[in-house]
Amino acid sequence: MSDIRIVSGGVTAPRGFRAAGVACGIKARGGLDLALIVSDQPASAAAVFTTNKAVAAPVVVSRRQLAVSGGRVSAIVVNSGCANACTGPDGLAHARSMTQLTSTALACQPSGVLVASTGVIGVKLDMAAVERGIESAAAALAPGGGADAAKAIMTTDPFPKEAASEIQSAGGTFRAGGIAKGSGMIEPRMATMLGFVTTDAAVEPALLQRALKEAVDGTFNAITVDGECSTNDCVFALANGASSVRLEESDYALLVDALTSVCRPLAIGIVRGGEGATKLITVKIVGAASDVEARQAARAIANSLLVKTAIHGGDPNWGRLVAVAGRSGSEFVLDRAAVRIGSVELFSAGAPHDERAADAAEYLKGRDIVVEVDLGTGGGGHSEMWTCDLSAEYVRINAEYRT
Amino acid sequence: MSDIRIVSGGVTAPRGFRAAGVACGIKARGGLDLALIVSDQPASAAAVFTTNKAVAAPVVVSRRQLAVSGGRVSAIVVNSGCANACTGPDGLAHARSMTQLTSTALACQPSGVLVASTGVIGVKLDMAAVERGIESAAAALAPGGGADAAKAIMTTDPFPKEAASEIQSAGGTFRAGGIAKGSGMIEPRMATMLGFVTTDAAVEPALLQRALKEAVDGTFNAITVDGECSTNDCVFALANGASSVRLEESDYALLVDALTSVCRPLAIGIVRGGEGATKLITVKIVGAASDVEARQAARAIANSLLVKTAIHGGDPNWGRLVAVAGRSGSEFVLDRAAVRIGSVELFSAGAPHDERAADAAEYLKGRDIVVEVDLGTGGGGHSEMWTCDLSAEYVRINAEYRT
Repeated sequence: MSDIRIVSGGVTAPRGFRAAGVACGIKARGGLDLALIVSDQPASAAAVFTTNKAVAAPVVVSRRQLAVSGGRVSAIVVNSGCANACTGPDGLAHARSMTQLTSTALACQPSGVLVASTGVIGVKLDMAAVERGIESAAAALAPGGGADAAKAIMTTDPFPKEAASEIQSAGGTFRAGGIAKGSGMIEPRMATMLGFVTTDAAVEPALLQRALKEAVDGTFNAITVDGECSTNDCVFALANGASSVRLEESDYALLVDALTSVCRPLAIGIVRGGEGATKLITVKIVGAASDVEARQAARAIANSLLVKTAIHGGDPNWGRLVAVAGRSGSEFVLDRAAVRIGSVELFSAGAPHDERAADAAEYLKGRDIVVEVDLGTGGGGHSEMWTCDLSAEYVRINAEYRT
Repeated sequence: MSDIRIVSGGVTAPRGFRAAGVACGIKARGGLDLALIVSDQPASAAAVFTTNKAVAAPVVVSRRQLAVSGGRVSAIVVNSGCANACTGPDGLAHARSMTQLTSTALACQPSGVLVASTGVIGVKLDMAAVERGIESAAAALAPGGGADAAKAIMTTDPFPKEAASEIQSAGGTFRAGGIAKGSGMIEPRMATMLGFVTTDAAVEPALLQRALKEAVDGTFNAITVDGECSTNDCVFALANGASSVRLEESDYALLVDALTSVCRPLAIGIVRGGEGATKLITVKIVGAASDVEARQAARAIANSLLVKTAIHGGDPNWGRLVAVAGRSGSEFVLDRAAVRIGSVELFSAGAPHDERAADAAEYLKGRDIVVEVDLGTGGGGHSEMWTCDLSAEYVRINAEYRT
């Protein structure tokens, strides 16, 4: 990592950004449900979208806005409580209308507004509520408004996710900030999670896009709560240059580090606040034939119900880790494989060390758990993913979400 | 289907088979834990094994026995309570010893015994208990012993799984029977499930193998409880010819039907008795680009925590079905897709029919649920899978399995 220090302020920590979060009545039970994030001057924009083939209307509209605007964006408008997904032509009209209402309220270019939604699928937006929300959010915009915006994009999240950092570069100091939401329907390839990242560095859209994709691959795309991938996922990044620091191609690594410094705590925050989660689990894979195979094995373990329930119950059940690694599709050599829970090696060279199980059980009482599997191929492939345990509370939340 | 009728008797319904199930002390909490299935004359044998790269010792040994014996087998010995997986060289010696003890007790060829184990991974077998068990099971063998054998292979199964049928063929009447176990760690590609199928038709091993594989693909490989795949899965088939009916290549379809008539109710029984399950869910996919893509989408839905929890809660949340179909990797055309819960169409042509949600919610109060998704490609690909709902009880069972 470069010279990067954590600062407060979230998505409005970088200069030249304002935000707001208001309650306009989209959520049936009340609460903040509409957020605006605004750059005082048009910013370079980049985005990563869901890989789901059933894409929601705001994804379709934001993709188009990015193309039409040439990656120059002034604002992001987001609602929670309604995903505006599977809503047909009306849904598309509503998403477009959200960008138009926002551009009118802010007096910015109509193409310079991105839109995102999260919440229940298949329900139409209450556009009267949305219109009220955009008006009052525009009136409430403030340089300290990041915290309200972070709250207004939440659905089942138990807490808001904000992060920001200050980066020293050869050209001077700049900042990066962000907010994210997501609790269930989270999996490695963009799931119902939204992330909004800002920086006051000046970066061309193409460079920002490449750096955002790399930062997302190692952070938001390396988490899973339940293996699901939603219709609405997106991460947007805005770079407005308000710091007067310009990042060029030669600063690519620094830019990735800057974005990662924000995306990583946001991603881990999503997992820590996963539906029903009581523990954060870091899954490390080493000894894989390649990094791709390592990621495949890490993903299988991070999504395994048997692993997640065992850790929930504090059971050092290394056998389940072996079984899942073995079925992951990645090369796996049982006789040379190893399993560690924390620093306790419970299985190696084809044999268990159950005399150490009590140490591992003690370790599993903690809230931050690391499990490591050596796939035993002798290769140097490795990967790291984050997930959470699976509790009865997850089932309760998801069996009762709508009814 | 051919002229096939259901009969009682399970794995010993076909002539010339005897079985037994005894308690020998492998299971810590007591109960039947060792089963023998014996053919009075050497039978043609076929097997399908786990695709897990971490294979348990009994799988290694049974594969070798099939090769050495040329597919001529007299007996299957099975224990529950201990998987004999990840147990190193001792585990291999123990599995070999189980076949030797059985061949001695039955006075049959040493290579003519297959072995299977199920239970906790990474724990060594108590061979003194196993030896006692094989002796008392051999003494208890009976033509009506299928029911005890079905009980003796259970682990977390809430009930034993038996099936048998009688098939009319041009050459006369023959029978097929079987038992199976499995409750958790079940997924489409062989999971901790064991299945043992017998027939008194005479079938060459190679033909039996092909027919078994086809029957398993549409039954045991079309179920999932939790997307897991164990180290120990196997399905064995024995054909002993005691009915004097000989099935040749030209009878292949009939043989597949006969095996399927037994494997299908056993497979569905596994799902119905899935850990914590309260509902059997049949997932039907139509309108896919191919059968392979249909199966892929069916598997994604059948393993989706959000779908399984929604159905558990009686929530007609068709949006989750759309979202999972969209992320399954199979071709999916949202504007032409459709979702039906029972006979209630809740989504079609890109738009919801939420006015019918109450009908679907009423239907979801039942215990046998059918959900159908048309992927909207216009193709003729289709597939069917069976799964169960996900309850808090599943979490409880798996968080507390060992500790």
